[in-house]
Amino acid sequence: MEKIKTDILIVGGGPAGTVAAITARKNNKNKKIVLIREKEKGIIPCAIPYIFNRLDSVEKILMPDKLFKTNKIDLLIDKAINLKPAEKKLFLESGKELSYEKLILATGSKPTLIKIKGIDKKGVWTIKKDFEYLKKFRKEVLKSKNIVIIGGGFIGVELAEELSRIKKLNINIVEKLNHCLITTFDEEFVIPIEKKLKEKGIKIYTNTTVEEIIGKDKVEGVKLKTKKSFEIPADIVILSIGAKPNVDLAKKAGIKLGKYGGIKVDKYMETNVKDIFAVGDCAETRDLITKEFIPVMLASTACHEARIAAANLYKKENLLKNDGTLSIFSTFVNGLAIGIAGLNERRCKEKGYNIVVGISESPNHHPRALKNTQDIKVKLIFSKNSGKLLGGQIIGPEDVGEMINILGLSIQKKANIYNLDTLQISTHPLLTPAPTVYPIIVAAQNALIGFENNKKSKK
Amino acid sequence: MEKIKTDILIVGGGPAGTVAAITARKNNKNKKIVLIREKEKGIIPCAIPYIFNRLDSVEKILMPDKLFKTNKIDLLIDKAINLKPAEKKLFLESGKELSYEKLILATGSKPTLIKIKGIDKKGVWTIKKDFEYLKKFRKEVLKSKNIVIIGGGFIGVELAEELSRIKKLNINIVEKLNHCLITTFDEEFVIPIEKKLKEKGIKIYTNTTVEEIIGKDKVEGVKLKTKKSFEIPADIVILSIGAKPNVDLAKKAGIKLGKYGGIKVDKYMETNVKDIFAVGDCAETRDLITKEFIPVMLASTACHEARIAAANLYKKENLLKNDGTLSIFSTFVNGLAIGIAGLNERRCKEKGYNIVVGISESPNHHPRALKNTQDIKVKLIFSKNSGKLLGGQIIGPEDVGEMINILGLSIQKKANIYNLDTLQISTHPLLTPAPTVYPIIVAAQNALIGFENNKKSKK
Repeated sequence: MEKIKTDILIVGGGPAGTVAAITARKNNKNKKIVLIREKEKGIIPCAIPYIFNRLDSVEKILMPDKLFKTNKIDLLIDKAINLKPAEKKLFLESGKELSYEKLILATGSKPTLIKIKGIDKKGVWTIKKDFEYLKKFRKEVLKSKNIVIIGGGFIGVELAEELSRIKKLNINIVEKLNHCLITTFDEEFVIPIEKKLKEKGIKIYTNTTVEEIIGKDKVEGVKLKTKKSFEIPADIVILSIGAKPNVDLAKKAGIKLGKYGGIKVDKYMETNVKDIFAVGDCAETRDLITKEFIPVMLASTACHEARIAAANLYKKENLLKNDGTLSIFSTFVNGLAIGIAGLNERRCKEKGYNIVVGISESPNHHPRALKNTQDIKVKLIFSKNSGKLLGGQIIGPEDVGEMINILGLSIQKKANIYNLDTLQISTHPLLTPAPTVYPIIVAAQNALIGFENNKKSKK
Repeated sequence: MEKIKTDILIVGGGPAGTVAAITARKNNKNKKIVLIREKEKGIIPCAIPYIFNRLDSVEKILMPDKLFKTNKIDLLIDKAINLKPAEKKLFLESGKELSYEKLILATGSKPTLIKIKGIDKKGVWTIKKDFEYLKKFRKEVLKSKNIVIIGGGFIGVELAEELSRIKKLNINIVEKLNHCLITTFDEEFVIPIEKKLKEKGIKIYTNTTVEEIIGKDKVEGVKLKTKKSFEIPADIVILSIGAKPNVDLAKKAGIKLGKYGGIKVDKYMETNVKDIFAVGDCAETRDLITKEFIPVMLASTACHEARIAAANLYKKENLLKNDGTLSIFSTFVNGLAIGIAGLNERRCKEKGYNIVVGISESPNHHPRALKNTQDIKVKLIFSKNSGKLLGGQIIGPEDVGEMINILGLSIQKKANIYNLDTLQISTHPLLTPAPTVYPIIVAAQNALIGFENNKKSKK
């Protein structure tokens, strides 16, 4: 049995593990850093939907391993099967025994499964972050004709749009709620996205559940139920209904878990066991605004947590803190992007927040006559009590991708309605909306009128 | 002599005047608002460089007057020639006499001229915000062959790039400093831009002054001096060396001016005369970071000031404040965008700031194999004492346009090195850099290592 002495040991080679390793190296020039990855090859998870058409092979989403080499991080392809915190030892499938000073768990998540009759049939796929699996998946999809995607969240919608670029495929989305993406966005933002999906020939079954996956050994169809039951043909069924934390190792080692099954961590990303940290999908997540536990699993959140944990390993002062996770998302569907930072209006109302809303729309370039000019619409939600920004949603062209990060930072830096009304921005005819109508500012200005009228009426 | 009683009177119909009028209306439902504009037609000033090729007529940059109608703002095409603050009266060229409760001066700026022999020749043009002038200018440019642009600032560079899209033109930029745009950016950001200009066949004469404009009545050439004097042919000479505040009306009325000749204003944008406000290019500007007076004239700054002044007109509490102008700029040249927020490194050093710098570069989409993926480079400058962000520069594709606004907000909300290292962002393969290498965060992380090492070494 080979024994290896490490200083910093990281379990997991996804975005969280990788960023943790690199950050640990930046902070510790001379420590021995070892990263354990189960799979021979690491992939970029967010890019999985795009392996079918925009990218012409799964190889294109491989995470380059040279980063480990240049940062002097030892990469071990192996599986961690047992952790003994009291001895500070980790045991691998190969029989290796690793000691550590600091351990970072970045064991990720696995796809949620549902109990449906026929779920085990050939032709039912989930979104696994597994290179070999994805290669087979891609091959089968490209050979097929009828695709049924179960779950109209981000991955379902992105997959559907990507697959709709392949002419011969019939794509269907099955969503149990009344709209795709509706757990994340307000209705007026998802309706245009659904329209974009429909324009690509995608069929969307909302308010619809799956009753059975039909076929002999292999999938032949799916039995759905909207009001009545009906069947649609299918060669491929894709489950994209979410993921759950992969905590087998931590649980077995007696590390505390939290709500939704993630590993419990403090604001420094340390678990209840000293010197063991957890980051990414496997760690519990608390909402920055509501402070509630939320089941958000994002590569961006994972990287954020990894940077905090890995910087804190040996720190005695100025520790980095995780004040909570900002729900911040974006996607791009058939030429239309949407993004959200913070809470949507529905969620604000559910939580009993007293809110004021401002909306504004403007061309993304100025004047409108410039080529490729498209409208951008911004909706901002402020607390009527404090004036703080609680959430913002944006819809429009690609610009949304970075614009939503302006709102994200606003929430993180506790910007209020006055800050955004007096925001100073750079504008350029070919790059941004006009300064006269910049939609974040004008939405804030519109909200401010309501906010001040409300204050006056209270007096 | 017609006498008109107004409540809110605005002089100037550029971006500042227009935004002031609309904001005044949002805040005051029942006031009579009158806006005086000298020219028959208003134009979008930032778009002037793009009237030659990207836009096919000057009509395309007209500012729509319908905004005035929908906001019940009376537009008077006239010239304000005399202001009597003691009587609260404004006199127009037409003979009209206007009284007001609140007056907003948004009289803008005019192009700076230089004393060069031959400057009065036919064929010498400046960048006037004047529809009829621009129409003639466009026509003459399109008929010409050799163009000499004097001044390699934003307008000079943008004009040169736009004109280089017209095949038959020979374009020359004459810049007295060692690089174009070098008063704004650090050297490593302007060199790639100059390369992009040169790729379009544009000749750039740096460290070069203009000695004489040659020709009989009409321009035939320009005599330049780098080390030696030499001549280049020219049909058209364009002066783009800056602008100065247009303060004739204010000065005559005894309103106080400040450094650089702009109208002195307090943080509420009010002049030394009660009930008279000044906004935009005609008002004095103070730097948000250094608190020095700076000669920055931008439409975005103008709109910011206009929103503040117009909201404050009748306010007795919660007045909006102008804490100083953030220098924030962007431009787009032959497929490459650059942006800056705050101070550049050179300026920091001149001002004696003790700084730490972080740099990072990453593809704008992920994985890199996705179509149209380009690199984005971010440079962040933090105070070594306080950790506060003093400035940031970004170069890359169009994404820079909104990304620089993230840095702008960071400075306005006093974000420090820790805030940006733990920034939570939205990422998407088709819209943004990867979460693992998001360049604003990684640049902050890189700077943080230097920042903390510096702290340790002090102990």
